[in-house]
Amino acid sequence: MQLILDFGNTFQKCAVFDRENMISDIKFEKISLNDIVDYTNSFPNIKSCILSSVMNTPEDIIDYLNHKFDFIELNSKSLIPITNKYSTPDTLGKDRLAAAVAVCKLAKGKAALSIDIGTAIKFDLVNSDKEYLGGSISPGLFLRFKSLHTFTAKLPLVDYNNLHSLIGTDTQTSILSGVMNGAIAEVNAFIEIYKSQYEGILIFITGGESIYFVNHIKSKIFAVSNLVLIGLNEILLFNE
Amino acid sequence: MQLILDFGNTFQKCAVFDRENMISDIKFEKISLNDIVDYTNSFPNIKSCILSSVMNTPEDIIDYLNHKFDFIELNSKSLIPITNKYSTPDTLGKDRLAAAVAVCKLAKGKAALSIDIGTAIKFDLVNSDKEYLGGSISPGLFLRFKSLHTFTAKLPLVDYNNLHSLIGTDTQTSILSGVMNGAIAEVNAFIEIYKSQYEGILIFITGGESIYFVNHIKSKIFAVSNLVLIGLNEILLFNE
Repeated sequence: MQLILDFGNTFQKCAVFDRENMISDIKFEKISLNDIVDYTNSFPNIKSCILSSVMNTPEDIIDYLNHKFDFIELNSKSLIPITNKYSTPDTLGKDRLAAAVAVCKLAKGKAALSIDIGTAIKFDLVNSDKEYLGGSISPGLFLRFKSLHTFTAKLPLVDYNNLHSLIGTDTQTSILSGVMNGAIAEVNAFIEIYKSQYEGILIFITGGESIYFVNHIKSKIFAVSNLVLIGLNEILLFNE
Repeated sequence: MQLILDFGNTFQKCAVFDRENMISDIKFEKISLNDIVDYTNSFPNIKSCILSSVMNTPEDIIDYLNHKFDFIELNSKSLIPITNKYSTPDTLGKDRLAAAVAVCKLAKGKAALSIDIGTAIKFDLVNSDKEYLGGSISPGLFLRFKSLHTFTAKLPLVDYNNLHSLIGTDTQTSILSGVMNGAIAEVNAFIEIYKSQYEGILIFITGGESIYFVNHIKSKIFAVSNLVLIGLNEILLFNE
């Protein structure tokens, strides 16, 4: 069994995989060593562990993982099962890399696109030669709402809502239309361009805000809730 | 002749119209009464004036305009040459209302769409019955760049650039692709939906950031640099 740790800014996720199958996952807002000890105590067969972190991980957690498991911390020098063609691998988000590894595996030799919709909307492309080529980053829904409120004098902070007609008739519905319909249009347009450039490409969508998109995507897509965890597990297995 | 004043948060614009023709315009970063006196001294035939302001306009400016000209300050109760169907006219941005009046005039009886791309991207629709129906608001390019930098831990502040391939290969070009291609895709998609719902609709684009869009719009559009000033002038003439 493998322990997969994905420490983001907002949440820290832990999961246990048995080879390629995820058998458990849990999410924390501010993880501690005790949380990890408690969680892993239920799985005595865990042998190895991978950590992807965007935060300064506490020393006691690193020490514990190092002593208890075959442990690797993902960085730009880690061995991965795809070729990283990004021109600045040092600055590539580990979540983007892990998502690319995951969609490459799931697409089984076809070109694959990961669309990760969370704080940001991230597109990441792996071609049929298992080469990660790059992609794009734009603000997620909350960042769009927040920027209109924070950086203008008069606009209110509007909240997600699945009801968004094209023509807003007050400030709230005007912003809802612009942000929700705009981001959906953006995602649909990018998918169409990728499909036209990469024949037979498989498209995967993931991320906390993806629930606002899946019913509005015009193309066939696969919604996978844990693309980053799956990718991290693949990287860990590749390093065995 | 008429004096048109459009005081926004970032710039204050002054223009002089002779009936429907704009014969001069000037822009200030922080306007003073002296600026207005200096500017209007060159045009002794100015009779009337309209002010649209989102800021607290200095008393001395208001006093001067009131004494010197037939003066109106635009608000939600002002007489306008279109019917305002917005459900909360008090909160409708004066720039949106003025742009709607302008495109209604320019479209000569056809349905008309104003796309104002500045701090925000604003769509505003007037139907063929000269009714303003509403529209949408989403973040402009700079707000998208700024939100990614301000509200995430690691992303840099990227600047406008007309070179934006689909697949970014480093952080900078990934953000450029997401923000520039994303906003362009959004605008194109909205135009397509409006065209499908309002036959023969005429589409006008304006605003400081519109230069990054005009060459990427797939439909026939009219680029008009001073839609808001034109609309304010129309409202002033309507009130004579």
